[in-house]
Amino acid sequence: MAMPVPTALPPTLTGTGELFQLLRDGKPRTRAELAQLSSLARSTVTARVDALLASGLLEPVGEAASTGGRPPTRFALSREARVVIAIDLGASHASIAVSDLSGSVLRERTITSDIADGPEKVLARVAAIAVELLAETDRGPGDVAGVGIGVPGPVEHATGRLANPPIMPGWHDFDIPAHLGKQFAGPILVDNDVNLMALGEYVTTWRSAPHLMLVKVATGIGAGIVADGRLMRGALGSAGDLGHVQVAGAPADVVCRCGNTGCLEAVAAGPAIAAKLRAQGLDVNSSQDIVDAVAAGEIAALQAVREAGRDLGTVLATCVNLLNPSVIVIGGKLSEAGEYLLAGVREVVYQRSLPLATNDLRIVSTSAGGKGGILGAGAMVIDAVLAPRAVDSYVAQRTA
Amino acid sequence: MAMPVPTALPPTLTGTGELFQLLRDGKPRTRAELAQLSSLARSTVTARVDALLASGLLEPVGEAASTGGRPPTRFALSREARVVIAIDLGASHASIAVSDLSGSVLRERTITSDIADGPEKVLARVAAIAVELLAETDRGPGDVAGVGIGVPGPVEHATGRLANPPIMPGWHDFDIPAHLGKQFAGPILVDNDVNLMALGEYVTTWRSAPHLMLVKVATGIGAGIVADGRLMRGALGSAGDLGHVQVAGAPADVVCRCGNTGCLEAVAAGPAIAAKLRAQGLDVNSSQDIVDAVAAGEIAALQAVREAGRDLGTVLATCVNLLNPSVIVIGGKLSEAGEYLLAGVREVVYQRSLPLATNDLRIVSTSAGGKGGILGAGAMVIDAVLAPRAVDSYVAQRTA
Repeated sequence: MAMPVPTALPPTLTGTGELFQLLRDGKPRTRAELAQLSSLARSTVTARVDALLASGLLEPVGEAASTGGRPPTRFALSREARVVIAIDLGASHASIAVSDLSGSVLRERTITSDIADGPEKVLARVAAIAVELLAETDRGPGDVAGVGIGVPGPVEHATGRLANPPIMPGWHDFDIPAHLGKQFAGPILVDNDVNLMALGEYVTTWRSAPHLMLVKVATGIGAGIVADGRLMRGALGSAGDLGHVQVAGAPADVVCRCGNTGCLEAVAAGPAIAAKLRAQGLDVNSSQDIVDAVAAGEIAALQAVREAGRDLGTVLATCVNLLNPSVIVIGGKLSEAGEYLLAGVREVVYQRSLPLATNDLRIVSTSAGGKGGILGAGAMVIDAVLAPRAVDSYVAQRTA
Repeated sequence: MAMPVPTALPPTLTGTGELFQLLRDGKPRTRAELAQLSSLARSTVTARVDALLASGLLEPVGEAASTGGRPPTRFALSREARVVIAIDLGASHASIAVSDLSGSVLRERTITSDIADGPEKVLARVAAIAVELLAETDRGPGDVAGVGIGVPGPVEHATGRLANPPIMPGWHDFDIPAHLGKQFAGPILVDNDVNLMALGEYVTTWRSAPHLMLVKVATGIGAGIVADGRLMRGALGSAGDLGHVQVAGAPADVVCRCGNTGCLEAVAAGPAIAAKLRAQGLDVNSSQDIVDAVAAGEIAALQAVREAGRDLGTVLATCVNLLNPSVIVIGGKLSEAGEYLLAGVREVVYQRSLPLATNDLRIVSTSAGGKGGILGAGAMVIDAVLAPRAVDSYVAQRTA
């Protein structure tokens, strides 16, 4: 992982990155406001603001109302000072975006790309598109502060390597950061795609809910967990792996592709629902077909989706007791079946969870939809690039 | 919560608390070593070390080997510069300790105390003992840096208030920090007792395993979750509430005291096991009786405890998939039944969890035992007292 080398700042400037955190929300503030918020001496704030201005990370954005005398200047995060690249790899697609430091997407493209083509081919493809998108925003690889990338498998976040990802042949233990690091500067961070969907949902819609869980229901079922505003990845990066949790009350004879019986995926994911509907004579083969059948008002499809929601709810009730989130977001293709899936989930969660844990619990459909992964990938790398020590290093380099 | 008022430090000294974090582990270090570890200029390190020495938080502890010339001095955390009070309240007991800044218990006492006596009586009782213990270590309330307190109910950690605790009549919404704040200075932090057992286990035994789960099995069943080295409390402080999770495969006719059926507590906690053994003619009425029967080699007791372990394992398998911990610690009275409980847990967890999540998973008995709660309460408040900004404030006050 190519992290910026820490460079020594003069004593008065160490802590510049810390002060900068107060400006991460994009709101303009005066020196006096920053001094008050930080409890720092006015002279310290002035020196740090000057350094941040010199580095380009901060810019003056007009004046505050004067209380007599010259009106004080307001400063805010210079969103376009640098850009990040966000990548979301799926089984059969890849999305690539160039985003500014506020996380806003400046340019984005989605292509058909088979993850089974292996890391060299897939990464060369997305890197080439990233360079094109950079050019379209009048930038080059030198303007890139970092790269965030989501993959459909379990990732050891610290190293950015995948551990035996089932649907990603050739990717086991491949060093994605080292590979992309040949083309792009800054940190290159890799995470599981569902984790990044959860992060994307959190940063764009639910900043007020720092305990959030996102559940993706499609061909498989997985979850991303945000606790105290941070992604919870677990010891080996496999946290949130809900698909093979045993569903209480599920028929013991349903065999899952993992070899166990009664797994959530084996009763509530797209293929299981489709099989159930085919047994009833419907021509349903994919998650999209299920969504279409629900939209067409097929009673059997409404019933099957609601039943899948109940099975999902049985597992989520356990998650609610265990994690005490304030929001559960349902995403993935099957969330497009709308209220039928959610109704089943709510039915069981509110019955089986403890009253304290469901007092303020909301269970909702995704807001970010298919964009969640790319927004989360951007947010993850921006968080690293704008962290206190990273900003200290950047300011030191730019003002040396 | 009585937090120290931030005082402005001179610019060169802001960040002193940050530097101090490098010394939290108690290992002695030279100025040169600190400069290298922190990437700070030598002059900055010298100024901060001087401020920490003046505040009393740091002390010289002998000299490093010389590389020619005067040998450099080593500095380390002055463990006894201040003390904290740690309190663990149970249903029928209270433990009170005075600990140094490394978390070592200097004096400790456990008394019989009924939590149902209500907050004023119970807190007056433990505060009086705390003052006695302080005197025994030649300290007074002025030497207290903060208070950590564990209670047997759900706590909103930010405010230190309890939310309808079932076994704590009179404690709902009581302001523990404000009440104890009349007698003791510094932060007064309240948390659930099982959370603090998890933290105590983590800081004393499992620092190398920042993803840890502690499960207390006694009259009830609850869990404390440490993720990335931090306690995971959830939106309302009820995270880890495992007792009323539905056990897959449990008989649907077992009614729990919560009104639902098939809850973990209703099949695997002390009262459930005792009832099962009484139905087989054994005179078993408490968790201690169960432990004794196991120790005496009663076959029925061995079988019942192992079966409870399997039910617990069914729920923990879900926790493993969801949280991906590297250690599960089993504590509480029933953990004294030793390998029989653990064997049942392991049997199901290794069968039902995903291979990646169980690769490095250890399932062990508690090391801290009955001391976990008090050690966790101490660790919680020390963490607050020695946090960067708290140290900055303290240094500013002491060197003003």
